[in-house]
Amino acid sequence: MKIEVNTHYKDLQESYLFSEIGRRVRAYADAHPDKKIIRLGIGDVTLPLSAPVTRAMQKACAEQADASSFHGYAPENGYAFLREAIARHYASFGVTLSLDEIFVSDGAKSDIANLTDLLGDNRIYIPDPVYPVYLDSNIMCGRRITFMPAHEENGFLPMPASDYTTGVFYLCSPNNPTGAVYSRSQLKEWVDFANRTGSLLLFDAAYEAFISGDYPHSIFEIDGARTCAIEICSFSKTAGFTGTRCGYTVVPDLLVSDGLSLNHMWYRRQSTKFNGVSYVVQRGAEAALSPEGFAACLENISYYMGNARRIKELLLAKGIRFTGGDNAPYIWLRCPGGRNSWEFFDYLLEELQIVGTPGAGFGSCGEGYFRLTAFGSRENTEEAVRRLREKL
Amino acid sequence: MKIEVNTHYKDLQESYLFSEIGRRVRAYADAHPDKKIIRLGIGDVTLPLSAPVTRAMQKACAEQADASSFHGYAPENGYAFLREAIARHYASFGVTLSLDEIFVSDGAKSDIANLTDLLGDNRIYIPDPVYPVYLDSNIMCGRRITFMPAHEENGFLPMPASDYTTGVFYLCSPNNPTGAVYSRSQLKEWVDFANRTGSLLLFDAAYEAFISGDYPHSIFEIDGARTCAIEICSFSKTAGFTGTRCGYTVVPDLLVSDGLSLNHMWYRRQSTKFNGVSYVVQRGAEAALSPEGFAACLENISYYMGNARRIKELLLAKGIRFTGGDNAPYIWLRCPGGRNSWEFFDYLLEELQIVGTPGAGFGSCGEGYFRLTAFGSRENTEEAVRRLREKL
Repeated sequence: MKIEVNTHYKDLQESYLFSEIGRRVRAYADAHPDKKIIRLGIGDVTLPLSAPVTRAMQKACAEQADASSFHGYAPENGYAFLREAIARHYASFGVTLSLDEIFVSDGAKSDIANLTDLLGDNRIYIPDPVYPVYLDSNIMCGRRITFMPAHEENGFLPMPASDYTTGVFYLCSPNNPTGAVYSRSQLKEWVDFANRTGSLLLFDAAYEAFISGDYPHSIFEIDGARTCAIEICSFSKTAGFTGTRCGYTVVPDLLVSDGLSLNHMWYRRQSTKFNGVSYVVQRGAEAALSPEGFAACLENISYYMGNARRIKELLLAKGIRFTGGDNAPYIWLRCPGGRNSWEFFDYLLEELQIVGTPGAGFGSCGEGYFRLTAFGSRENTEEAVRRLREKL
Repeated sequence: MKIEVNTHYKDLQESYLFSEIGRRVRAYADAHPDKKIIRLGIGDVTLPLSAPVTRAMQKACAEQADASSFHGYAPENGYAFLREAIARHYASFGVTLSLDEIFVSDGAKSDIANLTDLLGDNRIYIPDPVYPVYLDSNIMCGRRITFMPAHEENGFLPMPASDYTTGVFYLCSPNNPTGAVYSRSQLKEWVDFANRTGSLLLFDAAYEAFISGDYPHSIFEIDGARTCAIEICSFSKTAGFTGTRCGYTVVPDLLVSDGLSLNHMWYRRQSTKFNGVSYVVQRGAEAALSPEGFAACLENISYYMGNARRIKELLLAKGIRFTGGDNAPYIWLRCPGGRNSWEFFDYLLEELQIVGTPGAGFGSCGEGYFRLTAFGSRENTEEAVRRLREKL
């Protein structure tokens, strides 16, 4: 073929982090079929959908089987019933949104990556380490990228630096992978910086439901955020929807640059390049935000945070430095024995049959660190903790 | 804000065709609440999901309610069980695909639009009239566009012209909106042209299941297509999935340009910017391709084509020129009385309370034409035919 292809793809690293982990785990498992591998790596949930959610989905399936209650094309930005439920969820932490500011989608990953469609050639600021999609989606469109180092000195929470200029800033709080969470005053500093420089904050709140302390769940709890921020969130971790697929993005009415409303642009993007979320899934998501459904979400989150507590206690006992595990399902630890991230990955896989995520996979500042997740079953987490206690 | 936004959005027409139709219909309905409006406009299905599909979805919901059968993140390119079912579907018209060439997604619209991510600055060839997403998604990335006129003289089927050069060519067969369908020899001419010029064909086969005559269901039935074509298809029209959301795209292994494999690029695109289709939906799609499920699909298609026959008979009786309605659920007619497309739209809405789609909305060559769909209920279609017979 002689067509022009997007050669920025040549700038991508060979493989997506979680594919490489999968490859190494499969190779080990094939060679050692007798070993029981415990996966505390990829951030996938293990608890099933709650009864209110599956009841709602089953009911929706039945509606789809009957012409009188059948639903064809959904609104590209989501049914009003779900956007109203999301608005009520935001109201619960004091944020008022209009329904036109809420866009339902098939997940936060899609939205975070597709938001690049709306942007021109800006300087892109990405935390290091961080969820790889921010970086890869920007490499794919050839953007100039500046990393914002996250390390022990700043509590793994990058703040505006004196040499940062107008641009697009990705923030993730509670953070994947470090589990760190921005305080109200830190986010206020970010919002003020963005408004002063005319910058855009892309705020990834996918783990907001895991916050237990007095931290903002939404960037829109901060005065001034409506003129500088887009927020991306998801049912994946809140309600165990990783395999069910539903997320949402909030694009305030007030975001305007070069005469274009980002809210209108995103509506146009989604109505042109997306066709809405399955009716059955939207009914499930609505149920997850009902009083009964949300109580079930919190119960599951409490279960996962019980796993986090067990891992934290072990690390404390072993004297291993770590962050996270309080307001996020992730525990970010310093690899013991001076190992680098992939060395520690291979060590845990081969010696203890535990799969984690090498910190280096999230950025160069993640080298020497390692992520464990609280998303395993209690039984597997306790077994992993036992192995770590005995052998690490 | 001072960030750079994607100013190509300024080049988009004010509103998406179907939004404008919705606006006019709502305005009329609000002013005339007593009138019964019959919608033969937007290409949405009306028959419910079949019993095999909803049974499979209900069963999958139950699996999601139990930790031992719960499914979290799905493979971004779709579960093997569904890709295998799609491969068997292709085998039924003599096309052999490897599972790695099949990518399951949330729908053909997403895939058609997102495929622009893989491409550089090519000349883009788009039929006129055609489904608006091809045009809008390319305007959004600032591409140079050449329209390929479709008119009565070429049977609404553009063929390679002597001045067409290397580029990306969108083909849609059976066609939306004209209902025209390419023959085997016509597609062979396109494939030979593409291979000779190093061009890429993006073949939209969303309506393949409506083909009743001896026409290709897939571009891959044509020798040589594996080195020049990507095919996009969907369960939306085949199995009534407009509100359930599942499609698939076939990217052959052999597509390589500038050292990049388009198959690998699409895998990378989808694994970075998409997170797979809901497990429940994939089980439903699998069931739609089972022997029992596909028989139900064909029964529904037969019902819709019964509607098409009724509309065609009326147009023949009225002496109105039209195409389509044989291998596609669309009937494309010349607006009677010398009206232009929107005049005829307003006339049908206001005088007969029938909603159709103005041909001009699909491109300038659609001016003076009008699209009716066979997706209504039998009762509504017959009522529309009665009104047309008496008043047109």
